[in-house]
Amino acid sequence: MRMVDLIEYKKNNGEFNQQQIQFIIDGYVDGSIPDYQMSALLMAICFQGLTAKETAMLTQAMEYSGDIIDLSKIEGVKVDKHSTGGVGDKTSLVLGPIVAACGGKVAKMSGRGLGHTGGTLDKLESIPGFNIYVSEEDFIQQVNDIGLAIIGQSATLVPADKKIYALRDVTGTVSCIPLIASSIMSKKLASGADTILLDVKYGNGAFMQTLEDAKKLAQTMIDIGKHCHKDTRATISSMSQPLGNAIGNSLEVIEAIETLKGKGPQDLEELCLKAGSTMLVQAKLYQDESLAYKALQEVISDGKALEKLKEMVQRQGGDVSYIENPELFEKPSVIMKITSKKTGYVQSLEAKNLGIVSMKLGGGRMTKDEDVDHAVGLVLNKKIGDHVEIGETLLTVYARNELSQELLNEIYQSYTIVDEFVEKPILIEEIMK
Amino acid sequence: MRMVDLIEYKKNNGEFNQQQIQFIIDGYVDGSIPDYQMSALLMAICFQGLTAKETAMLTQAMEYSGDIIDLSKIEGVKVDKHSTGGVGDKTSLVLGPIVAACGGKVAKMSGRGLGHTGGTLDKLESIPGFNIYVSEEDFIQQVNDIGLAIIGQSATLVPADKKIYALRDVTGTVSCIPLIASSIMSKKLASGADTILLDVKYGNGAFMQTLEDAKKLAQTMIDIGKHCHKDTRATISSMSQPLGNAIGNSLEVIEAIETLKGKGPQDLEELCLKAGSTMLVQAKLYQDESLAYKALQEVISDGKALEKLKEMVQRQGGDVSYIENPELFEKPSVIMKITSKKTGYVQSLEAKNLGIVSMKLGGGRMTKDEDVDHAVGLVLNKKIGDHVEIGETLLTVYARNELSQELLNEIYQSYTIVDEFVEKPILIEEIMK
Repeated sequence: MRMVDLIEYKKNNGEFNQQQIQFIIDGYVDGSIPDYQMSALLMAICFQGLTAKETAMLTQAMEYSGDIIDLSKIEGVKVDKHSTGGVGDKTSLVLGPIVAACGGKVAKMSGRGLGHTGGTLDKLESIPGFNIYVSEEDFIQQVNDIGLAIIGQSATLVPADKKIYALRDVTGTVSCIPLIASSIMSKKLASGADTILLDVKYGNGAFMQTLEDAKKLAQTMIDIGKHCHKDTRATISSMSQPLGNAIGNSLEVIEAIETLKGKGPQDLEELCLKAGSTMLVQAKLYQDESLAYKALQEVISDGKALEKLKEMVQRQGGDVSYIENPELFEKPSVIMKITSKKTGYVQSLEAKNLGIVSMKLGGGRMTKDEDVDHAVGLVLNKKIGDHVEIGETLLTVYARNELSQELLNEIYQSYTIVDEFVEKPILIEEIMK
Repeated sequence: MRMVDLIEYKKNNGEFNQQQIQFIIDGYVDGSIPDYQMSALLMAICFQGLTAKETAMLTQAMEYSGDIIDLSKIEGVKVDKHSTGGVGDKTSLVLGPIVAACGGKVAKMSGRGLGHTGGTLDKLESIPGFNIYVSEEDFIQQVNDIGLAIIGQSATLVPADKKIYALRDVTGTVSCIPLIASSIMSKKLASGADTILLDVKYGNGAFMQTLEDAKKLAQTMIDIGKHCHKDTRATISSMSQPLGNAIGNSLEVIEAIETLKGKGPQDLEELCLKAGSTMLVQAKLYQDESLAYKALQEVISDGKALEKLKEMVQRQGGDVSYIENPELFEKPSVIMKITSKKTGYVQSLEAKNLGIVSMKLGGGRMTKDEDVDHAVGLVLNKKIGDHVEIGETLLTVYARNELSQELLNEIYQSYTIVDEFVEKPILIEEIMK
């Protein structure tokens, strides 16, 4: 078998078999297939696509390219969730505790933020002492004991994805549904959970720009899950505006804590309750979503959900007093209210721009090796559909220094305010399975 | 400017401007753009194509990536020709002498054979002593003196094409009309001639499989020529079977000599006379093709054409006695007649297969660094449309060793013989300008 022939074959819309895909992944991981051949193949795949069968085979070849986490020592159904990422997406910080408080076994490996999107690990690390580097043994023990752990992805997991993703990033081959699907699903499958819930976001701040593409990506991942006999479902949710109000690491942790107390933003709570009830049904702990939904509401109102977060923080070395008393989180010196120059209704709110503003404040990173500032960020006072008076606060900026005029302009340009009444947007479009 | 953005831009069918193309070619030649980005871009171009303007700009950026040959010291219009290559294509060996004998200035740089196609340089080197490594100064002097020189391409010519071609070869991006066109035309333009005649072949033994693609490629190259104010024309000719009868280096030289004496195969002679008359019109030496055609016939019949070949061979250090007496060319020990197993008409003759057989005999090379055997090859006794009796010779093999059964089968499989009468195929489909 020669890589150049396989590239030609895909260029001419051929369908790969198992041996061919294994040859490609093995060869790329062991270095016998050079980057320049792999990038040509990836570009050909961007144009010709992969069939459902090819995508599943590719995902599995990637999954088995490194270590596999064995969660069989954890009793019960292990549930995992993954978000395609967005601005202000602190879902895992809420979903993990509420599902675990209802008896779910949440053994989750998360990632860091890059560009305009944040990462769960960075958010958790704003809790002083919180340790994301946990051994596989301790990880399993913790989930067995308290039903919840969120840790960093092992370095030995899915090396094929690491190498392919780095190449895609510099060769214009990121936006390609079968490649995105196989990248996400190979990691989820290697992480060892029994069920997977995907939150596929669409819109300005998301990876997928349109609802149609988000549904295509979700269906592609569900098909992979079916092929691998894993219960895989997906919520399709809008990222037309940031999720919740907070953007920035500790600001999002604070908002998650509020949500676990039943005092969080309505959109975030709704997404967490809907996603959580799907996960509890996947875990076979509840027969239908409505019963699960009520159970989740209960663990919020009786304090068990917040208690679960505290348990996790304690087990992973974090300072629990910050959860009990969120005012302890450091506040940066500049806290600035941005006020509206116009009376009207918020028509649009560019999530991606605001994500970039937060990154520029220091809350995110441009390249993988940068550090993040846990204290900075934004808190939205007005979202789409809200009425705003001239002079009223649109959002609050938490920064280390006075804002530049450029940054101020970027913030103002993120809001469009119109005279006419604007409906609040739908958050969850659909739950697919 | 970032290469990754340019890749994305082309992937989304954007049209490059001059600066962008210059950035790509400069960056790739100086190494700041790595192979893996270039191959991704090339694959995107295979799918999205290049506009006529982009193709012309790319060709010029490539042309100027290295040295340019200045032929201005040669008096008169310098005419050049290029064949897209095929099996048994010894056109240059005939065309050069007949055009020069009619007063044309033929300053030609040629290439070596690869795979199933032969190369003019390998053929010329079967004449003992013939030197293809000629300085630019001597090259110009020779064309000024005798009107004809065929030499190897200077190593400093079009480095962008060398690097891009090597990458295309291993990344499945060879078959792409704008990339083929810019590769050929950048070299022709850098070689400094005033006019270019392209022989674009189509069919089984050619680079372009279909007439439609051959015409597209020809039009693309003619458009580049127009953009660069060079009179560029193209013959579209069939490679449904080998050109002439001989395949193999010295065998083809012998056939060229016969053709220069007016005793060559009819198809080869016809192609050379038609292409030659176009070149003489391009050179403004004749007002129309029919007058030029007659002049070319005359230099064949009065011996001036053969004389011109001898002059070139002498100037480039070759042993002229081989031209005067072609029996001097070494014959290998095995000369085997392959006879027909069936009576009927030759319906098809797989040029590519026969090119590969000749390569396997040692007459061609699989990879660039191999040597070729000048003596081996094939001479066809029957071509498409010919009647053949059972037991009659189809072709004659010149080999170093007895043929393997496998090679014999490959030869037999190249011929299809049917009962019904078969028309002889058209050789020249069209002359485009």
